[in-house]
Amino acid sequence: MSTTSREIRLASRPVGLPVDENFELVEVSLPDITDGELLVRNTWMSVDPYMRGRMIDRKSYVPPFQIGQPLEGHAVGKVIASNNDKFAEGDLVLSMMGWREAFVSNGEGLQKLETFGLPEQAFLGVAGMPGLTAWGGLLQIGQPKEGETVFVSGAAGAVGSLVCQIAKIKGCKVVGSAGSKEKCDWLKSVGVDEVINYKDHKTQGDLIRALKSAAPEGVDVYFENVGGDHLVAALEAMNVNGRIVVCGLISGYNDTEPTPGPWNLFNVIGKSLRMEGFVVTKFLDQTPQFTKDLGEWFMAGKIQSQETVEEGIENAPSAFLKLFSGGNKGKMLVKL
Amino acid sequence: MSTTSREIRLASRPVGLPVDENFELVEVSLPDITDGELLVRNTWMSVDPYMRGRMIDRKSYVPPFQIGQPLEGHAVGKVIASNNDKFAEGDLVLSMMGWREAFVSNGEGLQKLETFGLPEQAFLGVAGMPGLTAWGGLLQIGQPKEGETVFVSGAAGAVGSLVCQIAKIKGCKVVGSAGSKEKCDWLKSVGVDEVINYKDHKTQGDLIRALKSAAPEGVDVYFENVGGDHLVAALEAMNVNGRIVVCGLISGYNDTEPTPGPWNLFNVIGKSLRMEGFVVTKFLDQTPQFTKDLGEWFMAGKIQSQETVEEGIENAPSAFLKLFSGGNKGKMLVKL
Repeated sequence: MSTTSREIRLASRPVGLPVDENFELVEVSLPDITDGELLVRNTWMSVDPYMRGRMIDRKSYVPPFQIGQPLEGHAVGKVIASNNDKFAEGDLVLSMMGWREAFVSNGEGLQKLETFGLPEQAFLGVAGMPGLTAWGGLLQIGQPKEGETVFVSGAAGAVGSLVCQIAKIKGCKVVGSAGSKEKCDWLKSVGVDEVINYKDHKTQGDLIRALKSAAPEGVDVYFENVGGDHLVAALEAMNVNGRIVVCGLISGYNDTEPTPGPWNLFNVIGKSLRMEGFVVTKFLDQTPQFTKDLGEWFMAGKIQSQETVEEGIENAPSAFLKLFSGGNKGKMLVKL
Repeated sequence: MSTTSREIRLASRPVGLPVDENFELVEVSLPDITDGELLVRNTWMSVDPYMRGRMIDRKSYVPPFQIGQPLEGHAVGKVIASNNDKFAEGDLVLSMMGWREAFVSNGEGLQKLETFGLPEQAFLGVAGMPGLTAWGGLLQIGQPKEGETVFVSGAAGAVGSLVCQIAKIKGCKVVGSAGSKEKCDWLKSVGVDEVINYKDHKTQGDLIRALKSAAPEGVDVYFENVGGDHLVAALEAMNVNGRIVVCGLISGYNDTEPTPGPWNLFNVIGKSLRMEGFVVTKFLDQTPQFTKDLGEWFMAGKIQSQETVEEGIENAPSAFLKLFSGGNKGKMLVKL
């Protein structure tokens, strides 16, 4: 019995914003499983901004995607058949195989999923890598104290929206920036104190004024997802001993020319700022504490998650591209 | 009996590199001391890069210099007459009154100086504010471990040269960058492992190659005094979990237009870098430990200090300007 799977391959390396031609939808025939192997059919796959970096051929913390090979990323799937005694038919598994409908595995790198009553796709978002990113980045790198002001760019995204809500739980004032009135309204509805629709503030000076007006007391923690003008504005608005958690710089991911960094980096000295980048793997060993915190907050109704869903593997590239045009509210998912 | 003193006043705010016309030499008549007052005649005064920032009218961690008023900074002087029971004639004092030959004080802000056998001007350099800056910035913010590689820009300056030597004491490999062969030779003579004469590497690409060749194993701690191309090169050469201690960004202090920051700031994420600025006052309460460390290192012959001396208050502005043209090796001092 042969199983087919469709997968998205990297056809060519994008220059600037990726286009359809950089991706290729291919149907493959999967081999029958042998001893120790299992067959998984993905139910949900994730597209995330960091994948843009993997499309570039450079040395980084994860190896680049290879041309002609399927793209990879987190996915949730169901075990269809198993000759591996660690997995049984019907098990849910989390994998890093990504952009494909089904795959054969020897079990390596697969994690059996206990959902604890959460929807399975939550493990690609709030209960998964973006959740751990938000939790670890904000709490351990940002170290917000009660009463402090936290500014979050990309606040309506998968990571940003969770950062906002965790900061509220910790007793902070939260200022969030997003790219539409609808997103800003949603942020208000989950408790964000002040919102900035950055598309209403086209110039750098405008954004600086908007942030200073939203946080006249100054910003103590800036959770950076965006870069560019947002970083400049934050550097202007930061308080002494402020912390800048550098999670993402999405505004520059599709740049074809090196884009200049902030002209006002000197604030790092005068204001004694700490600016710290990280990769989510830093917090992997703290997953139990993250899961415990998140579970409690969920049960107490303190966290709301939001999803934007595209259907079908053939729409994975366009789902991915929407990350860069602001087409997602909360976690961007592809339902397979 | 009237005492006269000459002082340097800020005549106008410099735009770009300061020029002679921004400074004014004025002779003043000091009042006789009254009850609780003392008269100090300065013997040495310090010029430091941070003073350029105080010439700009902006909110910062120290208030700006005022036009028509004498400039301020650290100075060492001798008590000539005293009606203050905390100070006696002949005492040495450290003050923050700066660019003047003599002054009357009520004792506030003056520190009686115990030299422990060091030359008195050392308390403007290696045993003073630049020393504490190097010690605290490197050890507490940079946290170098034995066997790591430390890169220091402005390595032949007052702070940089001390950072290099403390890093060697801590068992690190040290790469130093300076602006002349003479400075590089001196750095070699005090134990710096690799030197880069940045004037031999005019392009950004050149400097990146020079740093990668001096530190093929990568840089773990970058002590930043300069900014610009140096920061770009460091971001390229940093190892994962590296630390960038932002002490100064002198290459931009005289810019008249906002200069772009590094185009490769994204390395902060992929390499999980921490970039942290500070002001020396952060370490003031640790002065006893600093003094103890430094004393031991001096006695053991592990630290050599270097001075560049100009004579006479009238030459203080030109001494200050030499900081920006690379005219100093080690601490720049004015002998009064």
